[in-house]
Amino acid sequence: MRSAKERLVIIGGDAAGMSAASQARRLKGPDELEIVAFERGHFTSYSACGIPYWVGGDVPSRDELIARTPEEHRERDIDLRMRTEVEEIDVEGGRVRTRDLESGSEAWTSYDKLVIGTGARPIRPALPGIDAPGVHGVQTLDDGQALLDTLARTPGRRAVVIGAGYIGVEMAEALIQRRYEVTVVNRGTEPMSTLDPDMGRLVHDAMSGMGIEMVNGAEVTKILTGDDGRVRAVATEDAEYPADVVVLGIGVRPETELAGAAGLPLGKHGGLLTDLAMRVRGHENIWAGGDCVEVLDLVSGRERHIALGTHANKHGQVIGSNVGGSYATFPGVVGTAVSKVCDLEIARTGLREKEARAAGLQYATVTIESTSRAGYYPGAAVMTVKMLAERLTGRLLGVQIVGREGAAKRVDIAAVALTARMTVDQMTALDLGYAPPFSPVWDPVLVAARKAVAAVRSTR
Amino acid sequence: MRSAKERLVIIGGDAAGMSAASQARRLKGPDELEIVAFERGHFTSYSACGIPYWVGGDVPSRDELIARTPEEHRERDIDLRMRTEVEEIDVEGGRVRTRDLESGSEAWTSYDKLVIGTGARPIRPALPGIDAPGVHGVQTLDDGQALLDTLARTPGRRAVVIGAGYIGVEMAEALIQRRYEVTVVNRGTEPMSTLDPDMGRLVHDAMSGMGIEMVNGAEVTKILTGDDGRVRAVATEDAEYPADVVVLGIGVRPETELAGAAGLPLGKHGGLLTDLAMRVRGHENIWAGGDCVEVLDLVSGRERHIALGTHANKHGQVIGSNVGGSYATFPGVVGTAVSKVCDLEIARTGLREKEARAAGLQYATVTIESTSRAGYYPGAAVMTVKMLAERLTGRLLGVQIVGREGAAKRVDIAAVALTARMTVDQMTALDLGYAPPFSPVWDPVLVAARKAVAAVRSTR
Repeated sequence: MRSAKERLVIIGGDAAGMSAASQARRLKGPDELEIVAFERGHFTSYSACGIPYWVGGDVPSRDELIARTPEEHRERDIDLRMRTEVEEIDVEGGRVRTRDLESGSEAWTSYDKLVIGTGARPIRPALPGIDAPGVHGVQTLDDGQALLDTLARTPGRRAVVIGAGYIGVEMAEALIQRRYEVTVVNRGTEPMSTLDPDMGRLVHDAMSGMGIEMVNGAEVTKILTGDDGRVRAVATEDAEYPADVVVLGIGVRPETELAGAAGLPLGKHGGLLTDLAMRVRGHENIWAGGDCVEVLDLVSGRERHIALGTHANKHGQVIGSNVGGSYATFPGVVGTAVSKVCDLEIARTGLREKEARAAGLQYATVTIESTSRAGYYPGAAVMTVKMLAERLTGRLLGVQIVGREGAAKRVDIAAVALTARMTVDQMTALDLGYAPPFSPVWDPVLVAARKAVAAVRSTR
Repeated sequence: MRSAKERLVIIGGDAAGMSAASQARRLKGPDELEIVAFERGHFTSYSACGIPYWVGGDVPSRDELIARTPEEHRERDIDLRMRTEVEEIDVEGGRVRTRDLESGSEAWTSYDKLVIGTGARPIRPALPGIDAPGVHGVQTLDDGQALLDTLARTPGRRAVVIGAGYIGVEMAEALIQRRYEVTVVNRGTEPMSTLDPDMGRLVHDAMSGMGIEMVNGAEVTKILTGDDGRVRAVATEDAEYPADVVVLGIGVRPETELAGAAGLPLGKHGGLLTDLAMRVRGHENIWAGGDCVEVLDLVSGRERHIALGTHANKHGQVIGSNVGGSYATFPGVVGTAVSKVCDLEIARTGLREKEARAAGLQYATVTIESTSRAGYYPGAAVMTVKMLAERLTGRLLGVQIVGREGAAKRVDIAAVALTARMTVDQMTALDLGYAPPFSPVWDPVLVAARKAVAAVRSTR
């Protein structure tokens, strides 16, 4: 006979898993619910998004990136087992097999409810030389520390960043701040492939203006090493780029080998598939959240994989509520992302052109330039806003913004409008905050919306 | 017989009137539509909202506040008559009587279509001494110039600002920047009566911290003058505040004497009443917009008077489209306003408690503190967010924010959510821009929404 006290097992001690644990604990005390969490690494609940700023020196210490230590979780009656890897999920038997990474010992732990928060792993292409000393990923705190150690030890000042997505551009900034000569080698035609190429071009120009060497449309073929075995250059088909240190910023994939092996449903991006309550589809007592799941894109109606701490935290909150006997949902995302390279701010939400085409949508695009403040107010900075809207209906489909101070967070206006399925016509009447230090009399997003109204009405 | 060419007459050459003129001209050329605009002052299309920053020195010259000069309007085939006051609207006869303020000559001009954009006038209480030299309003560019002339001429460094609304606090900042000792005398219990008093208290404390003497709950009884007839102090029932210069920042009323005398419909705030297309109610061929009209508050369903350049521009755009034969609407406002005093940012949207009570709504309030960026990121600044939500339905009713850099424009998230009539529950899932330089992993608005969800569910 099963005891009245349930056991919740959590795989992965970062944002999704530990938010779920904390929220479940808020709703159910230790006499009702036992919570056991397994984490294979050395840290819990940390901000991976903060690693570039720690490497760049804006954040002085690793500890500042840790929202909650293992001890703090344990104080809340969460039985946290660090350096313990889950090697198998026995869905039928309702148990997981773990290995203590220090002692090597194995054990089975049964669960009534299971939460999977195994995160994502960086894409690490199988290139010659990829494992040479001096080549670094930046996914975990351990990775960040290893890179900082290399930077401290290596006298050379030439850095090559492979990849020009969020991680790539943020790491370029970090290395610039560390006074490296930085080259970014990027497969795409422009950096930031989450933007349309015309907007990516603005990022390219701005980064070049910062003294960063931008190499686009270039596939890395190998990492060259010196006599000491350390990295000495990055080679593409056409050229070699000398490097004292190489940073991989190519992106991540859902870490779902364990879940896949257990027969849990994976989507075409390799992420776990869940319902609105973050329950794994077809499994009454298993939830999943964070970087290991796919999420519904509310604009296209398709599943996407987006590795972002803010989603992981929301997933954890929703899972914890549901596991704890309340009810909460995560309806999906609209694809909002913001980033910066030095003083350049970059933002997007909704669909870019490629995504709109893939979703079979007929759309119009407009691009406008405006300023972050009234043009006459000191510090007014130019920003470019690109807007996509559906032809015939006028529904907003997406917004991309590139600018300086005050540019990125304006994308939130569009994020809310997308969630509400507003038309660009409706957007022109939005009552946005206006005062000369904060906005022109027509906010840049409204200027774009006005132009989009005309564009969607046009039959050309 | 009436000719095929219509005449549009516009009363008032600022934001609403001239935006309407420009938009109508875009849609109809001078062979189809004659546009005659009357302006009693010396300037057209200027940013009154920018005056405090010109007085404070952030904006070096008056000309920068002028978006379009009379000459620029005339180049677009708008027959602009400056220094010409409209003294009567003959609605029945479809004509207006004007007086040339230079020559004194009078004339009648007939119209097919009429646009009223007469703006607002500052409230100027009938206090003894109110007309003394050294007492200044700041509604027009002429007012601003007069104040600057006084500041340049007067050796004393003591300034009293009467009123602590937007104009009052912005003028306090301007005078601080001019190195005056500033006292703000305010009738309300706290500054910024557009906020709830608990949020106004934060503004009070911050302004005191900037060295501004804050006198709240004090009614000014008279302006005291010296032997030279100039202002020397401001008196309340309890005290006298020495003043070398006095600035009136008490607010404005719709300038609708002319419209009222013509029998056009006025609301209870004294503003013209229009329909969704900004047409004056009951009048086929008369439109009105800007500071002289009342607008529908989409949250409370009641009419309000809000003098704000961003609304005036939108009204003008809508009127010009409709006058020009297209169709556009201004559905209403949600009451968004942003402002700053030195580095303190202040924002509100929707209803404050008093307004929610007046609208007969049952509501819950929550107040949270968070930061503008990830807590570990340099420059993360504390902000306080207060949120009102309707009990039982959970509908968002209003948000107030007081903080430093990055605080004010976050109110736009709530402004869009209010327009879409979102619940606080829906808001918790909003996909807002997250990266450490821009936001904590839970944006402060989301933190407030989460807490509001719990509050509206509570039966207490």
